[in-house]
Amino acid sequence: MATLGFIGLGIMGRPMAGHLLRAGHTVHVYDLLPEGVQALAAQGAVACTSPGDVARQSDVTFLMVPDSPDVEAALFGPEGVAAGAPKGSIVVDMSSISPVAERGFAGRLRAQGVEMLDAPVSGGPAGAEQATLSIMCGGDERVFAKVRPYFECMGKNINLVGGNGDGQVVKVANQIIVGITVAAVSEALLLASKAGVDPERARQALLGGAADSRILQLHGQRMIKRDFRPGFRLKHQQKDLNNALVTARSIAMALPVTAAVQELFNGAAAEHGGDIDHSALVTTLERLAKHTVA
Amino acid sequence: MATLGFIGLGIMGRPMAGHLLRAGHTVHVYDLLPEGVQALAAQGAVACTSPGDVARQSDVTFLMVPDSPDVEAALFGPEGVAAGAPKGSIVVDMSSISPVAERGFAGRLRAQGVEMLDAPVSGGPAGAEQATLSIMCGGDERVFAKVRPYFECMGKNINLVGGNGDGQVVKVANQIIVGITVAAVSEALLLASKAGVDPERARQALLGGAADSRILQLHGQRMIKRDFRPGFRLKHQQKDLNNALVTARSIAMALPVTAAVQELFNGAAAEHGGDIDHSALVTTLERLAKHTVA
Repeated sequence: MATLGFIGLGIMGRPMAGHLLRAGHTVHVYDLLPEGVQALAAQGAVACTSPGDVARQSDVTFLMVPDSPDVEAALFGPEGVAAGAPKGSIVVDMSSISPVAERGFAGRLRAQGVEMLDAPVSGGPAGAEQATLSIMCGGDERVFAKVRPYFECMGKNINLVGGNGDGQVVKVANQIIVGITVAAVSEALLLASKAGVDPERARQALLGGAADSRILQLHGQRMIKRDFRPGFRLKHQQKDLNNALVTARSIAMALPVTAAVQELFNGAAAEHGGDIDHSALVTTLERLAKHTVA
Repeated sequence: MATLGFIGLGIMGRPMAGHLLRAGHTVHVYDLLPEGVQALAAQGAVACTSPGDVARQSDVTFLMVPDSPDVEAALFGPEGVAAGAPKGSIVVDMSSISPVAERGFAGRLRAQGVEMLDAPVSGGPAGAEQATLSIMCGGDERVFAKVRPYFECMGKNINLVGGNGDGQVVKVANQIIVGITVAAVSEALLLASKAGVDPERARQALLGGAADSRILQLHGQRMIKRDFRPGFRLKHQQKDLNNALVTARSIAMALPVTAAVQELFNGAAAEHGGDIDHSALVTTLERLAKHTVA
């Protein structure tokens, strides 16, 4: 059994670290807030006082924190992972952050003899709890092979897609499709509804055809039932599309539809704040139609 | 066995009329071009000289023509369906046209004692040939029940979604989702590719997760393989999104993402014309990235 570390024990990290514990591994844990650390310690994890304290005692240290600045602080801040990680140890960032930032972090760790993988996930809190996350991994194949058994404790569809940062690139691609498809389903159901068609009958007729998607199945129903409890939070969708737009600009390409859809999410955030489900994008369009889907 | 009519014997109408013939029905056929009529007559159909000639001899007359003006000409032009159709007969428009126009046509036919259904389809030439079309039907429930056995000769997922024109509304909703999702998959794969990730590895990692869709499965592969043979023609996607935008304006609502995506299809048509597959939308974005997906 391995000696592991887990930094970031929020709604995602807590169940993920729990799966590693239950698989029999020793897990050193840290979070800025004490609740997560206490919950994991109660399950048998080793409570630590800083990211560096975790990394000093771990062969593989996982991170699951909100965004690029949080990863940077955990890695390179005072008492950070970089200050503690032994040569030859591995850092695995499972957060969803900027691919460009991630490549920079990997280079800085490599310079001190520490290997890095990026391994953002798709599947949300339900996927984290049921250990069914999709894991999109970037980094060295040999390092990936070492970490794969731990990924298998946490997820199902596990792919090495390229080198450092490339897992984040594919996660960004995932969020582009998810965000734009939420807008597509919103415009379609809203048109049907305002034109006088029962939106649930419309949704049923669209399932199984060329318009079918996970988003039509799940988010279409949320829009009709007006169930905007998260789910996937609007503020996280905004963060991911911001990463998409910043990345695109940095490599000199345009994402016109992603940009338009980000503005619709911004409109929904103006009304509801960022802690509502991202399917609430439909409410921005409802304002522009003076009509509600259901 | 019933006495049926079929007007419009193109790439869709020809196999659809063929299925009705092979089910044992008498089918009267007409097209502006003689080839389709000759092909169906060789299979046992009754060749007619005008839409009115078809309708005069048919209990149920099907139409499958390109757009609203073509339907209007076939119904109300010289020697049109309206001039021939007996009281109590049924006209079924399976073309994909403007919902607003369709409602007008249904009202004019009803005024002379002729029932109408709109029944646009999804599934393309392959669906027409294999009799697996999705059929989105608008009209009276009693009329739908009479026509349903003939629909079952041509398709599988057959839904009555509302009154006259509502089938067209749902078809427009279908095409909104299809068109926007083509743009979503284009932006995602292009970002991944230009950022240095193999687009096929990215596509594989995205399948089965929250970003999964029919469009990612089929059109994503077309984009990577550079196979832009139709398939579903760009000019038909443009027509359908035009119907979406005109309908939205007529009922006082905005479709900002549909509008943005239509402009991308317009860009692709500027380069390739309208007879290429609609997945060629990606080429407009490739111009804005100075990079090709595959």
